[in-house]
Amino acid sequence: MAMETITWVKGQVKLIDQTLLPGKLKYIYCKDVKTLWEAIKRLSVRGAPALGVAAAFGVLLGLKKFKGKDSAKFVKHVADVCDYIGTSRPTAVNLFAALEEMKASAVMHRDCSVTEITKYLKKTAMAIYDEDRRVCRTMGKFGATLIRSGQNVLTVCNAGALATVDFGTALGVFYSAKAQRKKFKVYACETRPLLQGARLTTWELLRGGIDTTLICDNMAATVMKQGKVDAIFTGADRVAANGDSANKIGTYSLAVLAKYHKIPFYIVAPRSTFDLSIKSGQEIPIEERDKSEVINFQNQSTAPKQVKVYNPAFDVTDAKLITAIVTEHGIIKPPFRQNIKNVFK
Amino acid sequence: MAMETITWVKGQVKLIDQTLLPGKLKYIYCKDVKTLWEAIKRLSVRGAPALGVAAAFGVLLGLKKFKGKDSAKFVKHVADVCDYIGTSRPTAVNLFAALEEMKASAVMHRDCSVTEITKYLKKTAMAIYDEDRRVCRTMGKFGATLIRSGQNVLTVCNAGALATVDFGTALGVFYSAKAQRKKFKVYACETRPLLQGARLTTWELLRGGIDTTLICDNMAATVMKQGKVDAIFTGADRVAANGDSANKIGTYSLAVLAKYHKIPFYIVAPRSTFDLSIKSGQEIPIEERDKSEVINFQNQSTAPKQVKVYNPAFDVTDAKLITAIVTEHGIIKPPFRQNIKNVFK
Repeated sequence: MAMETITWVKGQVKLIDQTLLPGKLKYIYCKDVKTLWEAIKRLSVRGAPALGVAAAFGVLLGLKKFKGKDSAKFVKHVADVCDYIGTSRPTAVNLFAALEEMKASAVMHRDCSVTEITKYLKKTAMAIYDEDRRVCRTMGKFGATLIRSGQNVLTVCNAGALATVDFGTALGVFYSAKAQRKKFKVYACETRPLLQGARLTTWELLRGGIDTTLICDNMAATVMKQGKVDAIFTGADRVAANGDSANKIGTYSLAVLAKYHKIPFYIVAPRSTFDLSIKSGQEIPIEERDKSEVINFQNQSTAPKQVKVYNPAFDVTDAKLITAIVTEHGIIKPPFRQNIKNVFK
Repeated sequence: MAMETITWVKGQVKLIDQTLLPGKLKYIYCKDVKTLWEAIKRLSVRGAPALGVAAAFGVLLGLKKFKGKDSAKFVKHVADVCDYIGTSRPTAVNLFAALEEMKASAVMHRDCSVTEITKYLKKTAMAIYDEDRRVCRTMGKFGATLIRSGQNVLTVCNAGALATVDFGTALGVFYSAKAQRKKFKVYACETRPLLQGARLTTWELLRGGIDTTLICDNMAATVMKQGKVDAIFTGADRVAANGDSANKIGTYSLAVLAKYHKIPFYIVAPRSTFDLSIKSGQEIPIEERDKSEVINFQNQSTAPKQVKVYNPAFDVTDAKLITAIVTEHGIIKPPFRQNIKNVFK
C-alpha cells in the first residue's frame, strides 16, 4: 500500500478525509489541534492505531499555542493539550496510550528547555508513527500463517491501511497473505451505520488486488451457514487483561455466529490496543453516537424523525468467543488472562 | 390501523407505494396486470400475505385483456395470467398459493360462461382479501398471550399492516397486545439493504402508539446481551413441512443470536404461508437481488462500483432455532413436523 493515511508534513497533520471515501480521495491538512480534534470526532480519521498516531501528532500541533520559556508551564500545557484530545473519542485505548506517552515524555524532560522538550515530543510522536508501521507488518506475518490458500475469510468495519498509518491490522494479515501468494477471498461486512466496510475496506482491498465480496451485516450468518467462511479476522479498539475485546458494533454478533458455525474468530491488535489496567470488557466505556447516523443517509431521511434510536459505536466480544489474538509479539491463545500476561511481561 | 395497504377499488388495485415511506404516503392505482407486476418487482407492495392478495387482485386485472366468449380459452387465459404474475418474486409462497386458488376457481367453473367465471374469480379474490384480515387478527390474539407487560420485544423487516391488508402478522401480535393494554417496548432492526424496518415498521408502530427503538441489524446481539430483549417475533415468507422458515435476510442471524442468549424466537405466519409440499427449508428458492441495492442509497454510491456483492433477499431459519410458530389455528410448538401436520389436518 503506497498510500499513507496519516503523516506529519511540515508542521501539519496530513490526513485522508475518510468520510468522503470511496467517492473522493481528498486530504485534510490540520494546522491546529482543534481542527484535528474535529477530524477525529466526525471520523475523518478513525481506527484505533491511527487514532494513537493522530493523538501524538495532535499534541505537536497543540504546542504551537504556547508562548514563553517556562518549562514547568510548558509541561502543564502539554498535559492540558492531551486532556483536550482525550475528549474526542472514549473507546479506542491507543488514543489514550499515545497521549500518556507524550505526557510522560514531557515530564521526563521537564528539566530541559522548552525547545528541547519540543524536540523530545517530536521524537516520541515519530516513534509512535514508526512503531505502527513496523508492528502492523509483524502482525501481518504472524496472522498470515492462519490463512491457507483456497480459503474464504470475513471481516467487519475497516481494520486496514485506513485504520493505521499505512498497512492495517486485520487487513494487514490479508496483505501479508497476498504477498505470500496465497489465494483467498474476502467477505467484507458493510458495517452500519457508517459503512466503513462498504466504503473503506472494499476500496482498499480492491486497490490491493484482493478478491472482495461486499455483504450487508445481516447476511454474514447466511454466508457462514453456507460454509463459505473459513475464518474471521477483525481489529480491536481496546483489549482487556482477560482478552475481552471492544471493536466496532457488530463484531460481537459475528463472534457469536462464528461460535455457532464452528468458525475460528481472530482479533488482530497490537500491544498498544491492550489495556491491562482493566480486568474485563465490562470496564470499557462504549461510545454512543448521535441518532442522525442511523436515521439519515447523506441528508436523506431513512426513518421517521421522532423514532427513538440506540446507536452504540462499539461492542465487547467476550474472550471465550475468541479463538486467538494476533499481536506483534506472536499469536496469543486461550487461556487469555495468563497468556496475555506472559507475552507482554 | 385505519390504513389499508392494498384494496380493490372500482376495477383497480390501490396500493401504498412503500418505496416512498416514511417520507410520503402515496397510493398507486394499478389498472393493468403489468403495472401491478412491476409494483411487486420493485417492492412497492411486499410482505408475504400482501403479495397473496396482490396476486389475486392481479389476476382480476389480467382478465380485462380477454376478448370473446369461449370459456375454455378464458380458463387458459387465467392460467397464463397466473404464470406471468408468478414470475415477479420467487420466495413468498402466499403469492403462488393465491394464484393456485384463482386458477382452481376458474377450472372449477369452466362449464360456466365467461361472465360467470369472472364473477367467481372476483369472489375468490375477495375471499383471499377478507381471509387475510380475519386471520391476522386471530394470530394477533394468540400471539399476544406470549407477551407479558413490562417486556421488550424485537422484530425485523416489516411484518405489519404494510405486509398484509391492514393488520400484520408479527406486528399484529404487538397491536393485539397493545389493545389488551399490555405495556411493552419494541426494538426494530432496520433491515438492510432496503431498510423495511427503519422505513416501514417504525413508521407504522409509531402511528399505532407503540414505544419503538430503531437499531441497526448489527446491534441486535448487543441489545440481547444487555438483557433488553425478552422475545423476538418475525413474519415468514414460506414455512416448510418441518418448520424451517424463510423470511427476510437477517432473520436466521437473529434466531442464532436468540438461541445463544436464551431468548424465545417466534414466527408469526398464517396457514397460507406454509408450503407443506416441501419437506425442509433447503427446497425454498431464495431470491437474489441486484447489487445496486447494496452499493447505492437513493442514487448515492456507498461502495466502489466494481466490488462484487452477494445480495440474498431472504434466509432460512432452521426449525430447531424456532420456539413456536403462531398461526390462526393456534400456537404450534416442536416437534414441528408432527404438530404442523396435526394442526392443519
